[in-house]
Amino acid sequence: MAPKQPVILVTNDDGITAPGIKALVEAVRSLGRVIVVAPDSPQSGMGHAITITNPLRLIKVDVFEGIEAYQCSGTPADCVKLAKDKLLVAPADLCVSGINHGSNSSINVIYSGTMSAAVEAAIEGIPAIGFSLLDHEYHADFSAAAHFAKIISQQVLQYGLPDGTLLNVNIPKLPLKHIKGVKVCRQARARWEEDYDKRKDPRGEEYYWLKGKFIVEDKGQDTDEWALHNSYISLVPTQFDMTAHHAIPFINNNWTLDAKTR
Amino acid sequence: MAPKQPVILVTNDDGITAPGIKALVEAVRSLGRVIVVAPDSPQSGMGHAITITNPLRLIKVDVFEGIEAYQCSGTPADCVKLAKDKLLVAPADLCVSGINHGSNSSINVIYSGTMSAAVEAAIEGIPAIGFSLLDHEYHADFSAAAHFAKIISQQVLQYGLPDGTLLNVNIPKLPLKHIKGVKVCRQARARWEEDYDKRKDPRGEEYYWLKGKFIVEDKGQDTDEWALHNSYISLVPTQFDMTAHHAIPFINNNWTLDAKTR
Repeated sequence: MAPKQPVILVTNDDGITAPGIKALVEAVRSLGRVIVVAPDSPQSGMGHAITITNPLRLIKVDVFEGIEAYQCSGTPADCVKLAKDKLLVAPADLCVSGINHGSNSSINVIYSGTMSAAVEAAIEGIPAIGFSLLDHEYHADFSAAAHFAKIISQQVLQYGLPDGTLLNVNIPKLPLKHIKGVKVCRQARARWEEDYDKRKDPRGEEYYWLKGKFIVEDKGQDTDEWALHNSYISLVPTQFDMTAHHAIPFINNNWTLDAKTR
Repeated sequence: MAPKQPVILVTNDDGITAPGIKALVEAVRSLGRVIVVAPDSPQSGMGHAITITNPLRLIKVDVFEGIEAYQCSGTPADCVKLAKDKLLVAPADLCVSGINHGSNSSINVIYSGTMSAAVEAAIEGIPAIGFSLLDHEYHADFSAAAHFAKIISQQVLQYGLPDGTLLNVNIPKLPLKHIKGVKVCRQARARWEEDYDKRKDPRGEEYYWLKGKFIVEDKGQDTDEWALHNSYISLVPTQFDMTAHHAIPFINNNWTLDAKTR
């Protein structure tokens, strides 16, 4: 219907061969011209890393039938930056990242490579969405997630997003018929209570390996954690302005920053 | 004066041997019991990466005279997590990260390893500050930055920070006498206009190397960029709740998310 076909950039952090990105490509391919630029290997937990001190490789691959696709040696954020500079003549109309194998709800947005790609696109002024399924399995069932990824992508193409925002969408591990719908939420207050296993390597040297327990400290019913635990998809509008605006008067009113006289 | 000596965790992203962390240790050592846990190699641009799929090494080192110090094979966020789980009996009273060799103002907060350590500490409920000097030189003059790092750390120990917030402090490259003071600011809207150099390796294969130009799109006089360009230290209260709260009604009022009926 649209006068010109939208350009949709697809990326992820599980790597270009992950089933989750294949499900996402299939979900959005009818909505516009799709171009895929994704890491050549898994990048989970990379946060918003970008590659400064190393060269990057970008190789055209034939992974998705009839879709222009590239694998990149860098992080998810590198993929978005390289795509914008070297592959796209005009900014993409939409960037979708995922579908991640595992949750990126609440505080996980901070650690997430999936979300870092979407954040990078949003910084560039491209409407962006990160999709994550609450299932770590390699061969998870992405069908319900893909169904909603298409619907939410259509909404963003149609209505856009407020300036400086992107979406963090998490899908519960449920069959389509048991998903109650989509809730627009805030990020729950939560954290990982870390617990490192102390082990010895074959040479007898100590090393540590991260385990951890996810603790939701937030009792609100307007959070992503609440939505996911109640069979809803959570959709959190997310921003890259990290200013704690409410803390500015606290500091100005209480602190002594006339520093030179000390 | 305080009834018990505060515990101050010091980390950075330039690595434990960088002059910037040495300046920071010297700046805060008179304020409490200092413990250093820092990466064993430079980690710039790592964003909020955490190490999940690899073991971590933690080695006690003698780098700062009279100070308990450890080098870690992980990222800045790993250092904070490991310190909390394995080295500290009670949560630290303050975590300071830096002094970074180079700016972490405005959007750089997203890419910054220095700030990721401070964010990780804040998630754990530890008051935290990231310090960065606008000078990339290895042998930069950290004296003015260290002077203000001590003063700002004192204020945080005395007054605390609002729940869920930390500080992003950037110091202009100026001698102490030319610094006009500290401004409490918001994060400027800015971005890196990327530009990748396309090169060929010795085997004739193409690779890309990131260059980039920093573009400040924000004309506000209440931003960190404005402060730094006008000879002030910028202090941005920062939060890890990335929800774009203002976008929630926009989506609820405009979108059709009653998805199942389609």
